[in-house]
Amino acid sequence: MSDKERIFGHIPGIKVGATFESFAAMNEAKIHRPSQGGISASENEGADSIVVSGGYEDDQDFGEEIIYTGQGGRDSSGKHVADQPLKRGNLALVKNQLEGLPVRVIRGAHTKNQHAPKSGYRYDGLYIVDSHWHETGKSGFKVWRYRLLRIDTNEFEVNKSEKPGLPQGKNVSPTRKTSLVQRIVRDTKQAKELKKHYDFTCQVCGEKINTAAGPYAEAAHIRPLGAPHNGPDIPENIICLCPNHHVMFDLGAFAIDDDYKLIGIDGKLNVSAKHALDIDHIRYHRMHYFNKTK
Amino acid sequence: MSDKERIFGHIPGIKVGATFESFAAMNEAKIHRPSQGGISASENEGADSIVVSGGYEDDQDFGEEIIYTGQGGRDSSGKHVADQPLKRGNLALVKNQLEGLPVRVIRGAHTKNQHAPKSGYRYDGLYIVDSHWHETGKSGFKVWRYRLLRIDTNEFEVNKSEKPGLPQGKNVSPTRKTSLVQRIVRDTKQAKELKKHYDFTCQVCGEKINTAAGPYAEAAHIRPLGAPHNGPDIPENIICLCPNHHVMFDLGAFAIDDDYKLIGIDGKLNVSAKHALDIDHIRYHRMHYFNKTK
Repeated sequence: MSDKERIFGHIPGIKVGATFESFAAMNEAKIHRPSQGGISASENEGADSIVVSGGYEDDQDFGEEIIYTGQGGRDSSGKHVADQPLKRGNLALVKNQLEGLPVRVIRGAHTKNQHAPKSGYRYDGLYIVDSHWHETGKSGFKVWRYRLLRIDTNEFEVNKSEKPGLPQGKNVSPTRKTSLVQRIVRDTKQAKELKKHYDFTCQVCGEKINTAAGPYAEAAHIRPLGAPHNGPDIPENIICLCPNHHVMFDLGAFAIDDDYKLIGIDGKLNVSAKHALDIDHIRYHRMHYFNKTK
Repeated sequence: MSDKERIFGHIPGIKVGATFESFAAMNEAKIHRPSQGGISASENEGADSIVVSGGYEDDQDFGEEIIYTGQGGRDSSGKHVADQPLKRGNLALVKNQLEGLPVRVIRGAHTKNQHAPKSGYRYDGLYIVDSHWHETGKSGFKVWRYRLLRIDTNEFEVNKSEKPGLPQGKNVSPTRKTSLVQRIVRDTKQAKELKKHYDFTCQVCGEKINTAAGPYAEAAHIRPLGAPHNGPDIPENIICLCPNHHVMFDLGAFAIDDDYKLIGIDGKLNVSAKHALDIDHIRYHRMHYFNKTK
């Protein structure tokens, strides 16, 4: 499989709820490409699909939320014999978290899982990777765990009675369903490339956030996407920021002058020679978002 | 109305789609409390409900997304005579954005709005305030604008054909529906109080982000809420962080030692004498999330 063919999101023509008899049938339909293997992924791009088959006893399936266990660290009998490395599919799933990439979830038949199909495999829609952590199992070895959350609830016809929770008043106690998603960053291709261009370094403060799974930065569209702003998704309209300066930029705590000097805070936007910014978008942001702090 | 009675979220017993003849009927049902006025709010707490009635020509109603115009700056004939101040209901709606508070949206009958009911008022569910900005109208005066996004899609029966968009492959171009929500912070009451206790100052770096609508910080649950972690929503399990250190904490780029020294980065967690942290939760995070960066 060429990396160019990796599709994140729904596969055109395949509806949520579609069933498949085998890995070969899923491969044919391009819903899950590996001929076996539960994770379809590359370390650089992320994971585009996984099969939840109950093969790992540690998995927990709540329907709209899945606690998924990473791969590796076991011998052919399934016994833990080593720490799971943060590599391959395990690292790819963290990339999904960092970049907000959706992963297709396919459930395989499993008698102990009420959310699994009776037989074969079923495409159960798109999930985001909300968080990841590690645990030390009974064997003393490390496993990686991922919290997956369904994002395409509306199109999901299976287990429809399980509606996502909603805040029911201000003193509601937090539940699994109401307090989950704190940050969703769904990068466009342009945004991803721009972050790489700046090596994930904030153009305002020079901060670069390093994690074990790689660097983290956020791409900010200067003139926002979508109506009524209708900013374009092009490098001329994107800057690479740390989360702090992204929040401040979006909340109008600072703006950018025509000469890239910052207004509202000290400093100057660092713009590389190869990155041409569109002054009209910078002015749009300044005119509509900047607001002097008290 | 006592401030204690302000309810954010659904009103128990009132379904999305419920209709009302008048403001008096809405007040009786507690769905919208003011006897006239489009925004039910206080500056400190945020806005719990708004009525979209088409009274402001600038409003744009896309169903699941609404561009809402702030209040004030007009004389009794509706003519712009002054800048809209970032106060009262206008400031309250920004509080909703900063704290992730949902606002109930009620639509009033309006012939030019296809999403409005034929007569009276209809409760159309919960929205978040995704962003705010200002515009200078034809009159030369400033108005505040808010982008509201429906969050309870599943329960919303009106205009059901309008499904939220989803990424349909990696090269999908951004549309209004697919690229909207970048950051949702839905604070619990405990989280809000803890942020106030630290005056919105990051316990790691001392940074305090100021905006025209007030300071911004994020509350991090040390042992996460919800299964499988089941961390409690109590001050002993919450710290106040800037967005950068929140990202780093959640991604395991640093952890906290028993003596509050930081591991993975330099420094020590600033903990006030009145804030007792539970060492077990700190150890839980350290054991499950911390991972040395390469």
